[in-house]
Amino acid sequence: MQDTIRGLIQKNGSKIILLVLDGLGGLPLNGKTELETAATPNLDKLASEGACGLHIPVGQGITPGSGPGHLGLFGYDPLEWEIGRGILEAMGLGLEVKRTDVAVRCNYATIENGIIKDRRAGRPPTEKTAQLTQLLARQIQEIDGVKFIFGAGMEHRFAVVMRFPDALGPDAARVNDSDPQHDGKPPLPLLPGSKKAEKVAAVSEKFIARAAEILKDHAPANFVMMRGFSTHPHMPSFEDAYGLRPLAVASYPMYRGISRLLDMDAPDIEGGFDRQVDYLESRYRDFDYFFLHFKKTDSMGEDGNFAGKVKKIEEADSFIPRLLALKPDVLIVTGDHATPAVMKGHSWHPVPLMLKAPYVLGRTCSRFTERECLKGELGIIKTASIMPLALAQAGRLKKFGA
Amino acid sequence: MQDTIRGLIQKNGSKIILLVLDGLGGLPLNGKTELETAATPNLDKLASEGACGLHIPVGQGITPGSGPGHLGLFGYDPLEWEIGRGILEAMGLGLEVKRTDVAVRCNYATIENGIIKDRRAGRPPTEKTAQLTQLLARQIQEIDGVKFIFGAGMEHRFAVVMRFPDALGPDAARVNDSDPQHDGKPPLPLLPGSKKAEKVAAVSEKFIARAAEILKDHAPANFVMMRGFSTHPHMPSFEDAYGLRPLAVASYPMYRGISRLLDMDAPDIEGGFDRQVDYLESRYRDFDYFFLHFKKTDSMGEDGNFAGKVKKIEEADSFIPRLLALKPDVLIVTGDHATPAVMKGHSWHPVPLMLKAPYVLGRTCSRFTERECLKGELGIIKTASIMPLALAQAGRLKKFGA
Repeated sequence: MQDTIRGLIQKNGSKIILLVLDGLGGLPLNGKTELETAATPNLDKLASEGACGLHIPVGQGITPGSGPGHLGLFGYDPLEWEIGRGILEAMGLGLEVKRTDVAVRCNYATIENGIIKDRRAGRPPTEKTAQLTQLLARQIQEIDGVKFIFGAGMEHRFAVVMRFPDALGPDAARVNDSDPQHDGKPPLPLLPGSKKAEKVAAVSEKFIARAAEILKDHAPANFVMMRGFSTHPHMPSFEDAYGLRPLAVASYPMYRGISRLLDMDAPDIEGGFDRQVDYLESRYRDFDYFFLHFKKTDSMGEDGNFAGKVKKIEEADSFIPRLLALKPDVLIVTGDHATPAVMKGHSWHPVPLMLKAPYVLGRTCSRFTERECLKGELGIIKTASIMPLALAQAGRLKKFGA
Repeated sequence: MQDTIRGLIQKNGSKIILLVLDGLGGLPLNGKTELETAATPNLDKLASEGACGLHIPVGQGITPGSGPGHLGLFGYDPLEWEIGRGILEAMGLGLEVKRTDVAVRCNYATIENGIIKDRRAGRPPTEKTAQLTQLLARQIQEIDGVKFIFGAGMEHRFAVVMRFPDALGPDAARVNDSDPQHDGKPPLPLLPGSKKAEKVAAVSEKFIARAAEILKDHAPANFVMMRGFSTHPHMPSFEDAYGLRPLAVASYPMYRGISRLLDMDAPDIEGGFDRQVDYLESRYRDFDYFFLHFKKTDSMGEDGNFAGKVKKIEEADSFIPRLLALKPDVLIVTGDHATPAVMKGHSWHPVPLMLKAPYVLGRTCSRFTERECLKGELGIIKTASIMPLALAQAGRLKKFGA
């Protein structure tokens, strides 16, 4: 479908804002969901005038991670474009992943006489891992012309991005995990599963050997293991796909990372959501499409904090007038997936969706809630359908067939 | 899906009428859509008793042309069966396109010393184009065993159908446009993009040379250019697909053309919509499936004439009793796409749909409107799903699996 859309793209001066309230959808506590409990006068007005519905990120019953959830919102079917674990890990730690890169999840381990004694090196404190990772980063900057970039994670975890001189293509990451999955076994040799993966496997083996040498006096963290080898998914850039100049305004590394995979402009932004909106306003002339990410709704849902999520929804609602003041041609408000506080985690439930746009029926919903969105004119749609709808409303799609 | 359906077909004496109100769906002006504004007592009664919903012709956000819109109504996925530009042009000018044909859009141009001086020959008046095209038709009836059929269009445009002795297959139209796209360049040579296209390219080059000879004293229209080479899409005939004997009752060439691509019986019919209904009544015994096309709702929408579209909807409503009097087993009323008067053109919005049929829930909608159809038992479906639903209601589909 994305290919069909690509063939219909026409440019104009219209602007689209996508406001993602992360983990927006919810479930009832004492009969009312988070959205039903929240006072959201601005969102309710938009919902009553605009086009509403719900969307399903991956498929019925499938709980999406942040990666697939956002890919869908950007119009990339998450079943077609899978983002590898290594990429997600690296992006979550704030590392940029380019089209020339192989990203790998790594962890510190304890080795004795060639046998893995503890696959997690006794779960070192996160500060220790930061120190060890700095040590590796200082001493391993390059192997055989491949640049190494490190990101320290929690406890035993870190990530490595190997930056090759040229793009390798999707096959290049077909390398097995070195983790033997059980203590008491030797690490597995890295074997290339394709011609293109040969150099990746060879360089990675050299990396493991050099790391072991550097770490040899740092037991229990005296070894590293690698898993989740992944390359950039090589999807078309957002601008190539849609002819839109995109700006991502997100304060968390993971969301900037996903945006950068699509070659969006995604600057680091410090401070609260108000600073994100400030930044969007300051760059409004320079772009056509704005992805504005509000994180805290998801965090509260993950914590099982129903009242906290309600409050964060109300906070997000208060920013709507500033977005409307920019007079975007299309304003989309939705989530990347549901995070019901009663479930303390992501879920598979359809996510409420609202489009403020010029060509809608309107007047089918009285509020912006899960139950009211069920009455909406959009019905329950695939998340990847939101992008074509927004493009159509913005006058950016030609007719299909004469 | 169509293959699955084909395997389940069983025949009986049931009859299905599909009434297409072209461009039926609309958007609000002062809060109400065209359907909401119109007085439609007959359609409202059917909607309250029957099964309602909305349908999406090609995909979310995709605005369909008439070709894809109708293919979907006939159960052929328009993303699977694309109708080429040459075919659509020829059909719009009333030319029949058979499975042995290659259809091409042509235009008159001005050439001097081998260079295209004006790609549109100064936009000759339409009458002049009719004369020139008659001249070509008289003098070029056949080249190398290939029959030439001409249709004159508006200004510089005409169409040619090249009828080969045998069907050529879809690859045969892989010939580039001869139009160099800019004045001041020579016409492009026609190059075959496949083995099967070689004869098409060779015959077309001879045609251009003969046309240039005939037109040499008719400057500025002293040359012709060809583009949009296309063959019949080679989809199964409607009768092969469904075991139904189909009659198309349409007064506009484009819709007869699409029907004929599926080998429907599609006679030329003169006069207004009442004459179409007369004709349908007169042939009711002879067929199982009736495609009845009402054009003016779309024309009014295209003109941005909201009140005119309302009136045409009311006119169509008045014919419903005559259709019901025939006691069809299934009566479908819908459009091929939306043409909201406020947009003055086709749009991507879901199209209201009503099935009068024996096995329905009913009583979910109080009127036949966009908003009421949202409450309907069919939900929002793909246009190509209407045909299986109609077949099922007509008792023409066997059980799938034991």
